[in-house]
Amino acid sequence: MAEASFWQELETLLGARLVRTKADCDLHGRSETWFTPTPPEAVAYPQSTEEVAALTKICNAHRVPVVGWGAGTSLEGHALAVQGGIVVDFRHMNKVLETHPEDRLVRVQPGLTRQELNTDLRATGLFFPVDPGANASLGGMAATRASGTTTVRYGSMRDNVAALEVVLADGRVIRTGSGAAKSASGYDLTALMLGSEGTLGLITELTLRLHAQPEAISSAVCAFDTLEAAVETVQMVMQMGIPMARIEFVDEEIACVFNKMNGSSLPEKPHLMIEFHGSDASVAEASARFGEVVTDMGGADFQWATTTEDRNRLWKMRHGAYSACLAARPGCMGLVTDVCVPMSRLAEAVAKGRAMLDAAGLTAPILGHVGDGNFHAIVLLDRDNAAELQKAKDVAHDLAHMALDMGGTITGEHGIGMGKRYMMSEEHGAAWSVMGAIKMALDPHNILNPGKIVPAPGEAC
Amino acid sequence: MAEASFWQELETLLGARLVRTKADCDLHGRSETWFTPTPPEAVAYPQSTEEVAALTKICNAHRVPVVGWGAGTSLEGHALAVQGGIVVDFRHMNKVLETHPEDRLVRVQPGLTRQELNTDLRATGLFFPVDPGANASLGGMAATRASGTTTVRYGSMRDNVAALEVVLADGRVIRTGSGAAKSASGYDLTALMLGSEGTLGLITELTLRLHAQPEAISSAVCAFDTLEAAVETVQMVMQMGIPMARIEFVDEEIACVFNKMNGSSLPEKPHLMIEFHGSDASVAEASARFGEVVTDMGGADFQWATTTEDRNRLWKMRHGAYSACLAARPGCMGLVTDVCVPMSRLAEAVAKGRAMLDAAGLTAPILGHVGDGNFHAIVLLDRDNAAELQKAKDVAHDLAHMALDMGGTITGEHGIGMGKRYMMSEEHGAAWSVMGAIKMALDPHNILNPGKIVPAPGEAC
Repeated sequence: MAEASFWQELETLLGARLVRTKADCDLHGRSETWFTPTPPEAVAYPQSTEEVAALTKICNAHRVPVVGWGAGTSLEGHALAVQGGIVVDFRHMNKVLETHPEDRLVRVQPGLTRQELNTDLRATGLFFPVDPGANASLGGMAATRASGTTTVRYGSMRDNVAALEVVLADGRVIRTGSGAAKSASGYDLTALMLGSEGTLGLITELTLRLHAQPEAISSAVCAFDTLEAAVETVQMVMQMGIPMARIEFVDEEIACVFNKMNGSSLPEKPHLMIEFHGSDASVAEASARFGEVVTDMGGADFQWATTTEDRNRLWKMRHGAYSACLAARPGCMGLVTDVCVPMSRLAEAVAKGRAMLDAAGLTAPILGHVGDGNFHAIVLLDRDNAAELQKAKDVAHDLAHMALDMGGTITGEHGIGMGKRYMMSEEHGAAWSVMGAIKMALDPHNILNPGKIVPAPGEAC
Repeated sequence: MAEASFWQELETLLGARLVRTKADCDLHGRSETWFTPTPPEAVAYPQSTEEVAALTKICNAHRVPVVGWGAGTSLEGHALAVQGGIVVDFRHMNKVLETHPEDRLVRVQPGLTRQELNTDLRATGLFFPVDPGANASLGGMAATRASGTTTVRYGSMRDNVAALEVVLADGRVIRTGSGAAKSASGYDLTALMLGSEGTLGLITELTLRLHAQPEAISSAVCAFDTLEAAVETVQMVMQMGIPMARIEFVDEEIACVFNKMNGSSLPEKPHLMIEFHGSDASVAEASARFGEVVTDMGGADFQWATTTEDRNRLWKMRHGAYSACLAARPGCMGLVTDVCVPMSRLAEAVAKGRAMLDAAGLTAPILGHVGDGNFHAIVLLDRDNAAELQKAKDVAHDLAHMALDMGGTITGEHGIGMGKRYMMSEEHGAAWSVMGAIKMALDPHNILNPGKIVPAPGEAC
């Protein structure tokens, strides 16, 4: 527990925007998944970069942990204050600061959510494409290097953040990147901050790359008799270079959940959910080529979403899959796996994953951003069954291990957080200690989201 | 000068592949541009990662600088051993190690050049798109975060390197990245190494992303009466989202050089050189839309390159612009500027740049990857005219300053090297010291390409 002078300094800075009630600390001590709640000692609600900088400087001087908080939607417990300290909730820093349609750039604050941004952009003919399932904050998405259904075409946060403003551990404010389309000027600190999960700095401003609303959009679902046929179709489509804007897999269990929770009428089979963006001619061409592959692979039951409303309903359903699965089995909690493998290994990986989950006797529908080689199992767990949770963790570990053996990664998009730090050494070898050296250089007192990503001070690696 | 035991250790390791002749050192002490030659004390020609690791370990123990050398084509003196030491020439590490067409990945050694790689890939239907003018080595291109004429469509090295093997200052070997299309696993060390210009590690292996040869390609040049009309056309085309694979500007002086040196018959006017990639239908559609914009902007004199040979001739001519300009004025040397600005400021930036160069009385044709907002002036200088060189440096500085004022960057693609380190603080402010802290953490004895990019130990920043 920090000393009294620390709290005085922080209260002088933030006044009523420093909250130490149990209720607020508890709210900021929970995650969307199975991790044990760990409430912080206080929640700060800064209104400006200057306040974040001053707050961090005080915390650094008193060696008190600082953990950023966006929308609280991460799936690996990134924002849990596992070593106590202050959670910095960015909800008041949620403005669109400046839109540059002619440069396809927008400058925003970190607490803004992706849906709020796209609502704001509606009149410009532009949009921000990265769409993790949840309506996450853009700061959080940057901190976790998030991606989503459109990454197969538009890339992830790595590709769509042009510049950042970041508060460092000692309270200094830096700017990374520029408004240019590219740069060869020194170390790529923007990329270094993306995915650093708040361990190297607190993101206080983002300049994001926007894309033109496509002239034509075409979406559909189609069904397959087997998981293998659906995933092999994806491999084939990607190898043929058919330009997909989205290509998502959901298994038959999820199709059932969709029917039950969303009133859809999908066959109880594995499905692909797809979308094409482009000119009228290019979308028609891509759809036709895709249709041919599906037919060859025994797929059928195409349902085209022809109106904007139908399309929105389709992707809302897809994005709501996690909460729908949880809601379909009241009282349960979820553990979501997140491996990503080279495209050539995808069908094998999904089939092996299915077999591992089945062998463990777990209820675990599979879905994924299969155009990226990335898939998830949503393991549905009884809250009070410790043995079941352990089984789920064991399979998640085996899946991650399999991904490494195939030349892939232990996390495609959810990040490291609490759940995967113990596997960092296995994935990165000596490179993990390089991450630790960088952390130590930028945050020598280890106040920024301690206990995440890097080796702890003194930990063997 | 290093001690005798150092040389003994290095000779034991490399035998005849450690060369200390004046001729070889002189060859590795030169750059493609105006910097004063600074020969290293020896040139090493390693054959394996293990040799690079052992060499670096020895150099680290003896505090001897180590500087990587690819094809020697950089334009900012990156590979000059300005503090003495060893130049590591990667020419023997030039193999294609493994091609994975189904994952569109290839694993290569750093000494391989981009043209050698594309020759090797010819039968696969895939290609590696990043094409700086010179036939650079892929290791060098990664180290400088290079880009080129196709970056507007396929991205730069930042977008096309999936994974690296890197030898650190202490001789440890790390692997960054994976074979997956994306990852959220820890700090993005791949991105950190790209553009670090050999100051954080020596790249000993690269896994590169490949692209499918397009079904249809269409290339052309067209002429404009004024520089402004040509560059405004680019802004318009980019804002309309016409999918360009290449869109390059060359001014009337370069058109004349092309006619003189390559036997082309271009009007003596500013030109755009363009290319479309896609399906037959999409290329036809994009060409037609582009043609309409050009006509509206008063452009004309379209010359279409209809055969593969014509197309290759066109881009060979473009890539040879620097050497053609030098050759057209025998005995001169070049200083090449390299700013990159947000697209909305491009026409203004090029016009201001032209005016600045003219006001200084310099011969300096302008060309650029204008689809990225990136343009160069090739300042042609009398080798013995120190005053002219100073004038050129002054204008280069003013141009870089202008780019910063416009929200751009001091270097779009050539990097920092010798010529722009003094401007790093101006572009990056406090972020420059963060780069210095990272350098110090990974290379505490400052042996890796010392004198480049970061603040020197103890330097105010």
